[in-house]
Amino acid sequence: MTDVPVREVVRRAGVRRVAELAGVSPATVSRALREGTPVSAETRARVRRAAASLGYVVPARTATVAVLARFPTRWFFAEAVAGVESVLAAGGHALQLYNVGDPDGRAHFFDTLPVRGRADGLIVVATAIDEAERAALDGLDVPVVVVGGTMPGRPRIGIDDRAGARTAVRHLVGLGHTEVALVSFDEDEACGRETTRARRAGWAEALDESGRARGPVLEVGADVEAGDAAAGALLSLPRLPTAVFAMSDEAALGLVRTLRRAGVDVPGSVSVVGFDDHEMAAVADLTTIAQPVHRQGELAGRAVLAALDGARPEGAQLPTRLVVRGTTAPPARR
Amino acid sequence: MTDVPVREVVRRAGVRRVAELAGVSPATVSRALREGTPVSAETRARVRRAAASLGYVVPARTATVAVLARFPTRWFFAEAVAGVESVLAAGGHALQLYNVGDPDGRAHFFDTLPVRGRADGLIVVATAIDEAERAALDGLDVPVVVVGGTMPGRPRIGIDDRAGARTAVRHLVGLGHTEVALVSFDEDEACGRETTRARRAGWAEALDESGRARGPVLEVGADVEAGDAAAGALLSLPRLPTAVFAMSDEAALGLVRTLRRAGVDVPGSVSVVGFDDHEMAAVADLTTIAQPVHRQGELAGRAVLAALDGARPEGAQLPTRLVVRGTTAPPARR
Repeated sequence: MTDVPVREVVRRAGVRRVAELAGVSPATVSRALREGTPVSAETRARVRRAAASLGYVVPARTATVAVLARFPTRWFFAEAVAGVESVLAAGGHALQLYNVGDPDGRAHFFDTLPVRGRADGLIVVATAIDEAERAALDGLDVPVVVVGGTMPGRPRIGIDDRAGARTAVRHLVGLGHTEVALVSFDEDEACGRETTRARRAGWAEALDESGRARGPVLEVGADVEAGDAAAGALLSLPRLPTAVFAMSDEAALGLVRTLRRAGVDVPGSVSVVGFDDHEMAAVADLTTIAQPVHRQGELAGRAVLAALDGARPEGAQLPTRLVVRGTTAPPARR
Repeated sequence: MTDVPVREVVRRAGVRRVAELAGVSPATVSRALREGTPVSAETRARVRRAAASLGYVVPARTATVAVLARFPTRWFFAEAVAGVESVLAAGGHALQLYNVGDPDGRAHFFDTLPVRGRADGLIVVATAIDEAERAALDGLDVPVVVVGGTMPGRPRIGIDDRAGARTAVRHLVGLGHTEVALVSFDEDEACGRETTRARRAGWAEALDESGRARGPVLEVGADVEAGDAAAGALLSLPRLPTAVFAMSDEAALGLVRTLRRAGVDVPGSVSVVGFDDHEMAAVADLTTIAQPVHRQGELAGRAVLAALDGARPEGAQLPTRLVVRGTTAPPARR
C-alpha cells in the first residue's frame, strides 16, 4: 500500500494537465474519458488526444461511496445515512460507513485515509471538518458532498438553519414570552460549527427584532443527557425562564423530562421548542422545527452519483416547518 | 462482471479440494495459506503442497466487511451497526452497509450479490433469511455472523429472547395482573422469525406457569405506528386488558402515547412493558427489558475478524435485565 499516495499525486497532476492541454475543465476531462456521458464528439476527441499524449489513464472505479458521520446512532445520522443508501443501492453503488465521532478514530481516519482507492466519492454528514482534514480529503481527488454542514468549494445539501431557529423563537415570542433561553450544541464538539452558529443567530435575530430579551445560553451538546444538564443549569438560576429553544429534539426531550421530574409544569411554567422532528418528538408531544433528513441523504447520494457521471454536483437547500404540539403555550401570568 | 460467478465456483471447489487432499478442514486451509496464523509448520507445509498441486491461490482481501440490515434508521439497527463499525475501524476494516428492508431492494441484493468480491465477511443484523437467500450467501464463501437472529451453521450473537420476555411478563404477574396482552412483531415481516417466536414463547410460558390468562395477541409490527395501531385494537375490545407486553420499545412508546391520548391512565389502568431499553425509554419513563445492542455489534465484528484470521468464529449470548420505570403498577381494584 505504500506506493498509493505517489500514484495518487501523479493521477491528480494528470487530470489537471490533460484539462490544460485540452483547454477544458477537469470535470470535462472526467466526462470525456468515460462512455455514455454528455460531451460533444469534438471535445471528446480533443480530450482523448491530450490524455493519450500525457499517458493519462482514467482511474478504476470501485462503485462504492463512503459516508463520514460522527454519531451514527443518533437519529439524524441514521436517517441521513439511510437516505444516502437508498439512492446508492438503486444506482448499483455500495455504501461504506466511517464513524469519525471518537477523536482517536478520527485522527486515524485522516492520517491513513482508508477510503483511498476504496470509494469513488465521499459524503460528510453533519461533521465540522478542519483545514488539515479538508486538505486530506482534497488529496483523494473524488467528489465530496456535505450534508448538514459546510465545506468551502463543496456542494452542500442542507436546510436554512438560521431561518428554522428564527421560526422556533418567533413562535415563542408570538405566544407572549418576553425572554427565550437557548440550549445550544457545543460549538467545537457537536454537529458542525456552521449549524450551531446559524441556529444561534436565528434565535438572537428573532428576539432582537421583537425587542425581547436573549435569555441564558447553555452550551451543553446535542443528546438527551445534554438536555438533562441544561435542565439542571436552568433550575439553578434565580429565576427560571418561561421559554427555551433547544437546537435538537434529543436535548429538548431530556430537558422536558428533567424539568417535569423536578416538578416544573411544561408548558404551564416553561415552554420548550426542539429542532429536527425526531421520530420520538411526536411520541413525546414536543413542539419542534421539522427538517427532511432522509431527503437530504437522498439528495447527497444523487449529487455524488451525478458527479461520477461527469456532471457538476449541485447543492440544495430544503425547507423546514414549525410543528406545534403540546410543549408550548402562553406564559403563565405571574 | 459476467465471469465472476464462474470464478467464484472454481475458487470454492478449490478450497474443498485442497482441504480433502491435505486431510484438514477448509478453515485450516484458509489459516495455513495466510501468514502469521496459528497452524503447525507441518500442517502448513502439507496444505501448501496440496494448494500448489491444485493451482489454488488465496483470494485477494478487500479489508471490508458488509452489514445487512432491514431498518437502518431504527435504534436497534443503528446501535448494532455502530458497534460493528467500532471494532472494524480498530481492525483496519471498512464497513459496507446494505439495506434489505424494501422487498425490491432485497430481491435485487440476493439476485446480484453486490458484496461479491467487495467484502471479506458478512454480518446479518436482525433479518430473517430464507433458504434461497441462505444458499446465495453460502455461495459467497465468506464468514457470515448473525446478530439478533439465527441462521443454521452460522455463529449467532444475541440474547435469550425467550428469557427476556418471560422476565417482562413475570414482572406484570408479580404486580398482580391476571391477564397480559401481547403486542407482537409481524412474524413474517419484522425482526426475524426466531426472535418473534422466542419472545412469544416467553410471554406464554410466564403466564402458563402462574396460571394467568394469555391476553389478546396483536401482530402489528415493531415501530411507533405499530404501537398506535395496537392501542386502537385494544381500545376496541369489550374490556381493556390491565397489562401489555410489547416486543419493542418503539411499539410500547406508541402504545402508551395513544392510550394516554384516549384518556387511559398508564400505569393506573394499563401497565406496559417494552423490550430493548431504547434511548427514549428512559425519557418516556418506560419499564422495559434492556439488552446490550452496541455490544452485540462489537462481538459480531470481532467474530468476523477472528474468522478472517483463520479462527473458528464463536457466537455469544448476552444477558438482558428488567428496568422498572413508571409504566408498570399493580392493577386498579375494580
